[in-house]
Amino acid sequence: MAEAGLRGRATAFAPASVGNVGVGFDVLGHAVDAAGDTVTVRRIDTPAVRIGRIEGLSGAFPTAPEDNTATVGLLAMRAALDLPFGFEVDVVKGIPLGSGMGGSAASAVASVVAANALLDQPLKMRELFPFALQGEAVASGSAHPDNVAPSLFGGMVLAAGDPARPVLVQVPVPEAVRCVLVHPQLKIATRDARGVLKNDYGIEEIVAQTANLAGFLSGCYTGDLAVIGACLEDRLIEPQRSGLIPGFDQVKAAAVATGALGCSISGGGPSVFAWCDSEATGQRVGTAMLAAFAERDVAADLWVSPVESLGARLV
Amino acid sequence: MAEAGLRGRATAFAPASVGNVGVGFDVLGHAVDAAGDTVTVRRIDTPAVRIGRIEGLSGAFPTAPEDNTATVGLLAMRAALDLPFGFEVDVVKGIPLGSGMGGSAASAVASVVAANALLDQPLKMRELFPFALQGEAVASGSAHPDNVAPSLFGGMVLAAGDPARPVLVQVPVPEAVRCVLVHPQLKIATRDARGVLKNDYGIEEIVAQTANLAGFLSGCYTGDLAVIGACLEDRLIEPQRSGLIPGFDQVKAAAVATGALGCSISGGGPSVFAWCDSEATGQRVGTAMLAAFAERDVAADLWVSPVESLGARLV
Repeated sequence: MAEAGLRGRATAFAPASVGNVGVGFDVLGHAVDAAGDTVTVRRIDTPAVRIGRIEGLSGAFPTAPEDNTATVGLLAMRAALDLPFGFEVDVVKGIPLGSGMGGSAASAVASVVAANALLDQPLKMRELFPFALQGEAVASGSAHPDNVAPSLFGGMVLAAGDPARPVLVQVPVPEAVRCVLVHPQLKIATRDARGVLKNDYGIEEIVAQTANLAGFLSGCYTGDLAVIGACLEDRLIEPQRSGLIPGFDQVKAAAVATGALGCSISGGGPSVFAWCDSEATGQRVGTAMLAAFAERDVAADLWVSPVESLGARLV
Repeated sequence: MAEAGLRGRATAFAPASVGNVGVGFDVLGHAVDAAGDTVTVRRIDTPAVRIGRIEGLSGAFPTAPEDNTATVGLLAMRAALDLPFGFEVDVVKGIPLGSGMGGSAASAVASVVAANALLDQPLKMRELFPFALQGEAVASGSAHPDNVAPSLFGGMVLAAGDPARPVLVQVPVPEAVRCVLVHPQLKIATRDARGVLKNDYGIEEIVAQTANLAGFLSGCYTGDLAVIGACLEDRLIEPQRSGLIPGFDQVKAAAVATGALGCSISGGGPSVFAWCDSEATGQRVGTAMLAAFAERDVAADLWVSPVESLGARLV
C-alpha cells in the first residue's frame, strides 16, 4: 500500500456474517464469504463525508451521513485522524436488509477498509475495528462486535473479556465445516429481535448454555466435529426468538434430519444457519431447509460457505 | 491390572479440585494434586458396603453407607455390576470438610478407583465416572461433575453439552500455570453456598460472563497467559458469594497486586484460588493471600500446585 496516498478511489468487499453462532450471544460471530457488501470510496477535497449511490438490494436506506452505517465510521475516522479531506461513498448491497446476516456491519466494514486505502498512512486492520463498530452501532442501536469482527477479520471471531473493551480472538474452525445460511424473504429489525428478549434468566438455563458454548469452542479448537455437533444448540435465545420466524421449527428439524451438526438463528434473524461436516452435506441440508420454508409458502435464498475464510479486502 | 481379581485390598488417592474455576459455574473444574483423600477398600464376603475407619481431618462424617460419599458410589457399583461380594472402606481425609476443595468428590472418586482394582474385570476410568458422581451427589444435594471429573481424570475438565449427559472434555492448561489454593479455616456447606444464589440474571451479566468463559478457554487452548489473565474474572457468582468469606476482597486484591492472573472462589468456598504464571509467582501470591487472611485473624492453609496433573490413582 505504499502508493495509497496516490489513489483517488478504492473499492472493498466485506462478507456477511452469522452473529451469535447460536451458543455465543453477543460474543461469537463468523464470516459468510458467499455474500457481502461492496463499497467504493472516493477521496474528495470537501472536508465532509457524503453518500453517493446506493445500489443492489432494495430497501429504505438512511441518506444522512450521520445515520448511515457506511458513513458513520468514516465520520469517526475523519475526526480521530484529523483528516483535511473528505469521502464520498457508493454502496452496492449484496446482503438483504434486516436479514440477520450482518449487512449493517458489512457496509460499515467495507467503507472503512476502502477509505483506509486512501489515507496517506493507512492503518492496520485492527485499528479499523473501532470505526467500523461505530458505523454498525447506528443501525442496531448499540455497538455489537459479533458481526463487525468476523466481517473485518474473516473466519470465526470471539469478543472475549470485558464487553466494553473486548479482546478479539480468532477461533479456528475445522476446514471441512460449511455454513448453510438461508434467508427467508421477511424482515426483522435488530431492535425488534432484541425487544422479545426477557431479562430474567435462571441459573439452570445459564449453565446449560455455557456448557454448550464451552463445548462448542473446545470442539473447534480440537477439530472434533462430534463435540461441535453435541454442543451447537442455543438454549437461551433461540426459544424466545424462533416464534418470529414462520416455519422455524420445521426448517431446523429438516436441517438436523439431513445431517446438520446444529441449526439456529443467524443474529437477530430471520435468517437461519446450519453447520455441516462437508460441502455435500451442506448442499443437502440447504435444499431441505429451502423446501421446509417453501412448505410454508416462504421464499428464501441460500448460501453455502466455508467458515474459515478471508475477511474484508480491497477488490 | 491382570492380577486385579487376586487382590483383597487396594488403596487409591484422589486429588482435591477447584470447582467452577471462576468463569465456568457447574461446567469447569481442575485438579489440585497437592491435597487429596486416600481410600482403602477391602473386598469382603458379605454382600454389602460398610465403613471402617475415617481418619485424618476432623469433622462429622455420615456413617450410614447410603449417606457417605465414599460408599454410595460403591453401592451403585455393586448394584450395576450385580457383584456377589461387598466392600469395606477406610478413608483418610486430606481435604478439609466444607472447604470448597472438592473433598466429597475426592472421597467418592478414590473409593470407586480402589474398589475397581478389586473387580474380577476392572472397568475403564470413564466407566467409573457415573458411580463417583452418585457418591458426590449425596454430599452436595445433586450431581455436579465439576469436582468429580477433574478429581478422577486430572487436569482441567469441562462438562460440555447437555448437563444431564455431559460430554467430558480435557482442556489443556499451559504447563507453567500454578494454582494457589488457600483454605481459610471456616466452613460453608455446599447447600448454603447454593442458597445465596439468586435466580434471575440479566442478559448483560450473562454476556459478560460468557465472554470471560469463552476467552479463558481460548487462552487455555492457545497457551496465551495474557488472554487467560484478561478473562479469569467471575462476574456472575462471585459477587453473590464473596460476602460469605471474611476478608475475600482484601485477599483477592492481594493476589492480583502480587501478580496473579486471576483470583476467585473455589467451588462453593470458603477456599479461594488464584492462577499464576509460574511457581515463583505462585509462592509470592500465596504468601500475600495468607497475610491478607491473617490481617482478619483468619488462619488459613496454602497449597501451590500445577494444574496439569494426574487424576486419581492406586497408591
